[in-house]
Formats: sequence, structure tokens, C-alpha cells
Amino acid sequence: MRIPKHIAVIPDGNRRWAKSAGLEKHEGYNHGLDPGLLFLKLCRKYGVEEVTYYGFTTDNCKRPKAQVEAFSKACVEAVKLIEDDNVSLLVVGNTESDCFPPELLPYTTRTHSDSGDIKANFLVNYGWEWDLGAMHTDTKNRKSIYDSLRSKDISRIDLVIRLGGRSRLSGLLPVQSVYADIFCLDDMWPDFNEDHFLAALNWYNGQDITLGG
Amino acid sequence: MRIPKHIAVIPDGNRRWAKSAGLEKHEGYNHGLDPGLLFLKLCRKYGVEEVTYYGFTTDNCKRPKAQVEAFSKACVEAVKLIEDDNVSLLVVGNTESDCFPPELLPYTTRTHSDSGDIKANFLVNYGWEWDLGAMHTDTKNRKSIYDSLRSKDISRIDLVIRLGGRSRLSGLLPVQSVYADIFCLDDMWPDFNEDHFLAALNWYNGQDITLGG
Repeated sequence: MRIPKHIAVIPDGNRRWAKSAGLEKHEGYNHGLDPGLLFLKLCRKYGVEEVTYYGFTTDNCKRPKAQVEAFSKACVEAVKLIEDDNVSLLVVGNTESDCFPPELLPYTTRTHSDSGDIKANFLVNYGWEWDLGAMHTDTKNRKSIYDSLRSKDISRIDLVIRLGGRSRLSGLLPVQSVYADIFCLDDMWPDFNEDHFLAALNWYNGQDITLGG
Repeated sequence: MRIPKHIAVIPDGNRRWAKSAGLEKHEGYNHGLDPGLLFLKLCRKYGVEEVTYYGFTTDNCKRPKAQVEAFSKACVEAVKLIEDDNVSLLVVGNTESDCFPPELLPYTTRTHSDSGDIKANFLVNYGWEWDLGAMHTDTKNRKSIYDSLRSKDISRIDLVIRLGGRSRLSGLLPVQSVYADIFCLDDMWPDFNEDHFLAALNWYNGQDITLGG
């Protein structure tokens, strides 16, 4: 079976899940923590080498205060839970704004970088325009373009898994995603389980790789 | 009904279609011309303001010579057919390589730009790394990032329609596609018809617009 080296996950649907469970919208984020740990466990089990979580974006911070506080707090907890799981961890996002949780500053350089363990990237207060906003390049050489991204420590994505019924990238790492296969599920992120993961892997296994060739 | 302002189409599957029709792979591209005209006609009929065709990429040029010649010729013919259809036409791609058909050079500045008619963009010998390869920006301001793209005359995409069974962007305009809804069809591009188009519009109509907010 062809296993993707790098999977990014868009954990969408927390608010809709909360509403359907009779909770306040912002209460959904907390229910996204366990699925995040399960996702990492499954990536390890099936030999995925790198995972990227789409935490929250600069745009998301325009939402009501209760929601911003809730997803920010959930991201801090998620990063700390993942850290305990002995990964090579990196948080990527715009640290120069009030929306960036100060507790996550220590993770903006990669931890355990020599361990050879699975790499886990967490996008926190990320924006595609922030990512591409410092580019100085006079070349069509791919490596030099990668090197001028603010997210340069995150590698090319093979598979994007999106929960929550939408079929879009929503600004996720535009350069790393150029050749990614995109797999969308209707279920909401708090309901993520191993069956979803296996469905994604099986689907990915049936795709060809051409990279345009 | 919510109609997308700008639709991009990825007309994939010409070679697989040709094979299943008992033809040589490269013979498929010619059968993609009529669907291209139909697509434009349908966009006009339903009030779409801008369309982008993913013609071929710099990577595609690494394919066998018979195929490169065939899709290059088909693109030249497509552009000329579309030109006769009174559109505001623009060809975007790397003109500084042998793969760029010289017949299309006159179209690299927009024609009929004041007509107010539908805009049609054609990506010819396009590469995402070419597009992003001249960026000089020290800002996270979206407009300044757009303005530093080589494809800056192509606006934000609302809906991507991909024929041919894959679910990926394959390097299509990474910046313009950041919020695009992506609709994939299993049928091959030469079989494209109005039902496909209506399925895409109906699906798009059911999506929410959040732009991350």
C-alpha cells in the first residue's frame, strides 16, 4: 500500500458538531482534542512521517471573542498533549499579533529535531498572506521559493484530509499543497475515527502520482 | 441561486479518454476543444463573469513529444476558437521557453479589455513556481501579494471544476485558489456536458462562504 509521507488535516466542523449536540458553538473545540491525538496515533501506526494540523488562522480571529478564546485554548492544549507524545514538534504562525498564544512561542523552533521520530506541525494564527509575505525571489527554482516561505520548515503535502463537509483548502499552505490529493469527509471533526483515516488511506492508494509529468 | 463569479476548469482525462476510445493517447486533446467551447457557453448562460482554463503546465512539457505537440496545438486552436467568441481574452504562462507556442504571444496582454464581456483566461506553459518566482514583498497585505504574482491579471477563483477523477489542484494558481471550492467529476474532459456543469453549480450553491471568518 502506498502511504503518504505527509498528511495535513483540516479539522473542520467543531462548531456545527457542538450545535447539533446542544452545546454552545465555542464548546465544540474542546471535543476536537481527542481526535487530534487519535490522528497522530494512526499516522504513526501506518508509517506516515509528517503531519500538519490546521489549528487556526489570522482570519479565524475575527470571530466572536468566546470562540477565539476557545479555539486558542484548545490549540495550546493540543500542542502540549502532542508534545508529551514524543514528536518532533513545530508551531508555525504569525507570532507578532495578539492572537498568537504566548504559551506556544517556545515551539516556534522545532523540538526533538534529531530524534528521527514523526514530525508534527501545528499551524497557529497562520495566514497564507503572512506565509507568502516575505518572499524575495528572482527565480522559478522550486527550492528557492520554498526557502523564502515563512513556513519553509514544513515539507510538501501528499494528502489533505478535511472533515466537516467542505471541499476547499481555506488558505492551507498554498505552496506545500500544490500537488496534494484532497480527501473530504462529511462527518464533523469531533467524530473523527479510524474508519475515516482508513478511507482516506485507501482512497489515496488508488490515486496516481504524476506531479504534472 | 448563488453563481460563482470566477470558475476555473481543470480539463483532465483526455489521454485516458483516448485510450478507452481505442485511440492513441495524444489524440485525446483534440476531443477537448468542443467541451471547452461548451464550457464558455454555459458560463455565459448562467452569468459567470470570468473563466480560467488550465491549458498545460511547464511540467506537462516533460511528456513524450507527440503528446506535447498535440496539447500545444489543441491549446492554440482553443484560444483562437475562444477569441472568435468575443471574450476578453488573456493567455498567462512562461513565454521564455521553447514550450510556449509563439502563435499565442499576441494574447499575453488582455484583448477587448474594455468590452465588459466575459473574461477568459488560458494558462499556457504555466508553472506555479514561475508564477511565484518574481515576488518581492515585505508585507502580509493581500493586494501587494497579488500584485507581485506573474498571474496578477487573474482574479480570485470561487469554484474549481476538475474532470477526470482526481481531486487535487495540480499547481493551478495557488494564490487565487486559496478559498476556492473544489468540485471533482469522475468523467473525462472530452465527455463534459451541461449536466456536469449544473451539478457543479448546484453543489456550489450549497456551500457556505466564510473566507475563514
